[in-house]
Amino acid sequence: MIIVIRPDASKEQLTLFKAALEERYNVTVNTWVGVESTVLGLIGDTVQIDEDWVNAQEFVESVKRVQEPYKKANRKFHPDNTVIELPTGQKIGDGSLYIMAGPCSVETEEQINYVARRVKAAGASFLRGGAFKPRTSPYSFQGLKAEGLDLLKGARKETGLPIVTEIMRTSHIDMFESVDIIQVGARNMQNFELLKELGKINKPILLKRGLSSTIEEWIMSAEYIMAGGNEQVILCERGIRTYETATRNTLDLSAVPIIKKLSHLPVIVDPSHATGKAWLVEQMSLAAVAAGADGLMIEVHNDPKHALSDGAQSLTPDQFDRAAKKIFALKKAYDEIVNEQD
Amino acid sequence: MIIVIRPDASKEQLTLFKAALEERYNVTVNTWVGVESTVLGLIGDTVQIDEDWVNAQEFVESVKRVQEPYKKANRKFHPDNTVIELPTGQKIGDGSLYIMAGPCSVETEEQINYVARRVKAAGASFLRGGAFKPRTSPYSFQGLKAEGLDLLKGARKETGLPIVTEIMRTSHIDMFESVDIIQVGARNMQNFELLKELGKINKPILLKRGLSSTIEEWIMSAEYIMAGGNEQVILCERGIRTYETATRNTLDLSAVPIIKKLSHLPVIVDPSHATGKAWLVEQMSLAAVAAGADGLMIEVHNDPKHALSDGAQSLTPDQFDRAAKKIFALKKAYDEIVNEQD
Amino acid sequence: MIIVIRPDASKEQLTLFKAALEERYNVTVNTWVGVESTVLGLIGDTVQIDEDWVNAQEFVESVKRVQEPYKKANRKFHPDNTVIELPTGQKIGDGSLYIMAGPCSVETEEQINYVARRVKAAGASFLRGGAFKPRTSPYSFQGLKAEGLDLLKGARKETGLPIVTEIMRTSHIDMFESVDIIQVGARNMQNFELLKELGKINKPILLKRGLSSTIEEWIMSAEYIMAGGNEQVILCERGIRTYETATRNTLDLSAVPIIKKLSHLPVIVDPSHATGKAWLVEQMSLAAVAAGADGLMIEVHNDPKHALSDGAQSLTPDQFDRAAKKIFALKKAYDEIVNEQD
Amino acid sequence: MIIVIRPDASKEQLTLFKAALEERYNVTVNTWVGVESTVLGLIGDTVQIDEDWVNAQEFVESVKRVQEPYKKANRKFHPDNTVIELPTGQKIGDGSLYIMAGPCSVETEEQINYVARRVKAAGASFLRGGAFKPRTSPYSFQGLKAEGLDLLKGARKETGLPIVTEIMRTSHIDMFESVDIIQVGARNMQNFELLKELGKINKPILLKRGLSSTIEEWIMSAEYIMAGGNEQVILCERGIRTYETATRNTLDLSAVPIIKKLSHLPVIVDPSHATGKAWLVEQMSLAAVAAGADGLMIEVHNDPKHALSDGAQSLTPDQFDRAAKKIFALKKAYDEIVNEQD
Repeated sequence: MIIVIRPDASKEQLTLFKAALEERYNVTVNTWVGVESTVLGLIGDTVQIDEDWVNAQEFVESVKRVQEPYKKANRKFHPDNTVIELPTGQKIGDGSLYIMAGPCSVETEEQINYVARRVKAAGASFLRGGAFKPRTSPYSFQGLKAEGLDLLKGARKETGLPIVTEIMRTSHIDMFESVDIIQVGARNMQNFELLKELGKINKPILLKRGLSSTIEEWIMSAEYIMAGGNEQVILCERGIRTYETATRNTLDLSAVPIIKKLSHLPVIVDPSHATGKAWLVEQMSLAAVAAGADGLMIEVHNDPKHALSDGAQSLTPDQFDRAAKKIFALKKAYDEIVNEQD
Repeated sequence: MIIVIRPDASKEQLTLFKAALEERYNVTVNTWVGVESTVLGLIGDTVQIDEDWVNAQEFVESVKRVQEPYKKANRKFHPDNTVIELPTGQKIGDGSLYIMAGPCSVETEEQINYVARRVKAAGASFLRGGAFKPRTSPYSFQGLKAEGLDLLKGARKETGLPIVTEIMRTSHIDMFESVDIIQVGARNMQNFELLKELGKINKPILLKRGLSSTIEEWIMSAEYIMAGGNEQVILCERGIRTYETATRNTLDLSAVPIIKKLSHLPVIVDPSHATGKAWLVEQMSLAAVAAGADGLMIEVHNDPKHALSDGAQSLTPDQFDRAAKKIFALKKAYDEIVNEQD
Repeated sequence: MIIVIRPDASKEQLTLFKAALEERYNVTVNTWVGVESTVLGLIGDTVQIDEDWVNAQEFVESVKRVQEPYKKANRKFHPDNTVIELPTGQKIGDGSLYIMAGPCSVETEEQINYVARRVKAAGASFLRGGAFKPRTSPYSFQGLKAEGLDLLKGARKETGLPIVTEIMRTSHIDMFESVDIIQVGARNMQNFELLKELGKINKPILLKRGLSSTIEEWIMSAEYIMAGGNEQVILCERGIRTYETATRNTLDLSAVPIIKKLSHLPVIVDPSHATGKAWLVEQMSLAAVAAGADGLMIEVHNDPKHALSDGAQSLTPDQFDRAAKKIFALKKAYDEIVNEQD
Repeated sequence: MIIVIRPDASKEQLTLFKAALEERYNVTVNTWVGVESTVLGLIGDTVQIDEDWVNAQEFVESVKRVQEPYKKANRKFHPDNTVIELPTGQKIGDGSLYIMAGPCSVETEEQINYVARRVKAAGASFLRGGAFKPRTSPYSFQGLKAEGLDLLKGARKETGLPIVTEIMRTSHIDMFESVDIIQVGARNMQNFELLKELGKINKPILLKRGLSSTIEEWIMSAEYIMAGGNEQVILCERGIRTYETATRNTLDLSAVPIIKKLSHLPVIVDPSHATGKAWLVEQMSLAAVAAGADGLMIEVHNDPKHALSDGAQSLTPDQFDRAAKKIFALKKAYDEIVNEQD
């Protein structure tokens, strides 16, 4: 950590400050005195240093981290990819492409079982579906809740697909015990109390990026879970909020290689929520594969010919079928090209 | 609600869709057939209509709400300002300016009592202070927690100032029973489960705007609390996330008159978190007064001469003293000017 | 165009307004009277209608375009892809992938010729290079200017590669006469006077997206050029400004399929400027191919072993070599997969 | 300037790099060797150093400016406020509040003269009005052009109000010779060729902030003009682009005190373009006064009872009358409060 000190700082302030840094954080402080400013260089475990506290000193001009503020999620300290292995055999982060597919909301037994069969047949490895739904309006449908979880489990029993579903409050953790991957939604990415509790269990957590979270903040939220002892975190890019109105959010695919450089955790992409438009899902799934994603999360809803469809962003099972073929074919080509030539 | 239908929609689809709208939502649907598109106009209580569901229909070109999607927070249905009266006599929203001041974090009994006395002497009506702290890093100080609450209560006893402090999880609601105003932080603005539970209690809630929340989403979060039965919501603008790096966030003061037009709820401004810089707090407080705010939330920390200060954004008690004098003087002038001439 | 009228509009205002619309814009106005509001539906060539003017009427609640505000760039009116054919044979937009590569700035004859030979050998079809450089600081190097143009022409002569370079002012158009593709930079995307003049010449224009331009505004800038008579416009996505700091800008790859849906113009991607980081360029180029781009613009600088390199975002010729192999291999696979299965 | 070097940099690279810095930029380079990284501290006139070039070196981890990248606009080197004095006596930046008011577009002689008389009577010191209009659509009204300039001059003659109007291309500079203040619009803030030419004339330039420009970039654009020799620059905040949709842009009032701290140039606020809504203009004008602005730019259009009004953001002369009274009254109170108590 580099700390630039204002030219008008007194000698006494500087001495006091350096002593405080060394005592509080057990770091070594080197001083470089320039003409216009003095620079402190801190050596040791600076991750624990509170940047706000440093910045708050009136004689501090600015602070610059050289090390990242996370440890457990940091690739520097864990060079190998984290591979999250499920009892059912999937190994997320092993270089394969896993697709999690299913409806936005679980609606009926018939619906979820039908969709589960169809997405399995098309090559999906996980069934996703919302039982508890975060909705902007208190007047919108909030999900089937516990009943929805039961329907998901039923569909798992029928198809063998492990299930991924979103948790919205700490007190539900017990209820989610038999869920295979617990999802934390974008709006709860910095619900630190929830993250802390999920750090205490032994189950993969799929952590969606917050609507306006930087990549560093997102990794810090993974660090919250990992700091509690649960190192099975999968990151999921789902678009960020920008001024653009042609899509619901702006899918930030550069986040995929950046995460892979900074962290050893697997990262998947959700083109359905990112774009909010079904017709963009296939194309952006292909782009996500070529960006190096470990997986995709795609919304698929039962045939809208027989029911009024749900979700402008959902594919029909037939559309998903066609898309999955192309996605897997591109993944195969991508692997050959990237591996062969590196 | 206006729904534009694609030109290639079949007659059957349209009939089916109109019937579904009328049955599901008990609205009347008028049809206007144009050359290039057909437009449906919905009459009735459209607040309950799920815009996503409408948009999801493949033959829907676009949807446009004419009514706002909130009712309880809507000024149209409640033309008079909501005034939130505390047992201690403050009436937030009555046209006066209330200042909530205090440290970012409660640290010691001596600290909080000293700051409380100083901010009271300077004219603050509420003591703010964090006991549970949302921190980006799991390694940063997370607050004194229950002990912090006790210290706040002690400071209240000593000064008579009602206390405002942030809640971070549903299971803490009982612990916050004797807190005067419960704050929901920006990162929890869409923690819908927390909002629902806060809707069941009878206590003012200070709802901060999310880092990237639109004004409509923010009001919708207030609606969540109100829909549960607790109509005592105070909105707090605290800056939004933009590309600008000179300030921590960009303070959106136009949100104040917009909230006042759209809603009857009181709205206050937090220039400390919005700017992240102590030297901007006084100036932006003055601007907030002239924007019509019902109050201010300002970070004040004990004398940094005697302790390493906390928070680049905190004022010292002396700085707060000087700022408060100007703030109240400007409020007086503002009221005379605006009332006299309207 | 749908216009929602406020409930308190007078009959007289409405009559006057409808007459004005019909007279000014030669459209037919249909009226649909609802309980809470009146809706006007306009039929005819609404592209010419000034939305600001409509919105400005005090009795107008809101306006909604059903048609896009552009004609010449609109795919609806030109269903076939525009293919821009150069005298040298390249056909941008014909389904092939064209790479434009070269240094950020032209520096010396040796440099530009060396880079030109290397990028040609690696498969690039165009030489890019800056002669006039838009720089944030007046104290930064502003390019070799006319001399830079001459060096580019020299490199073209030596390699046969057509050249792409940026224009910064109207009075330079004559000087750019023998440039093959004239680039309009992001900061000039809404320099409407420049766009108008470029509309009068007969030469392909590469129009970069503005730093905070919506896709619609970007197409409207293309429309400016086309409205003048020059329909040879190539759009270039180069990242938009967001709050994220890990990359210089956020590359918006969903813009590629959206442009292709809305417009018939070719669209290419510049991963160098979008990310600002050389190590991200190859990965994001692959993603751009899978997003359906018609081309790539990539910064390549001569061997940094022999010179201090320029541009944190530039590849070395060797890195470009390796990247281009993968890019073309992925393009081949992509075409087979997408064509075979559609 | 602080440069952090990667741990894997070779000794030779470092020596070469330091020599290059010292030679190219005539600075002194101090080296501080830490355990994990080496830090260079540069002393001297670092304004001229090209941050991109430094960042581009493969062994550079990151760069941090301690000094701002501008000199002429920098308050550090010019502690006193710049006061721009017009031949007609106005002194922008002298602590007074100047209002520039008038229609978005000049339309007719009658209109501009009427508005000019009305805004003068209400206390405005300048007449603003667009002759050349930057429009997103090539099909929208582009202004009366030269005729518009003549009408403005006519209104000046009649009222004595100096005129402010926007220039859109370099070749028009001669035509603007008798304009009192030349405006550079937001979309041309980084039209560097235009800025350079305006740096060569001797006339106040009103430089609007770009739609997504940081405060530093905005000051750098002022520096462009000043570097050419014209130091009469007035900055104008007019809202920045964010995700919020309730206003056209988000007015960033904190920019006012920040500009005043970083620079000695005067800064005014345009609430009309920032909000895009007439009903917000008065309130945000008051807030701008309390934020410390040197002036306001407000759109006023002739009486909409007699003509269909232009601009959802324009005030009528009567509305402007009432607003101006409050604005000047608040300015008076503000000055007394701030001066008395400092």
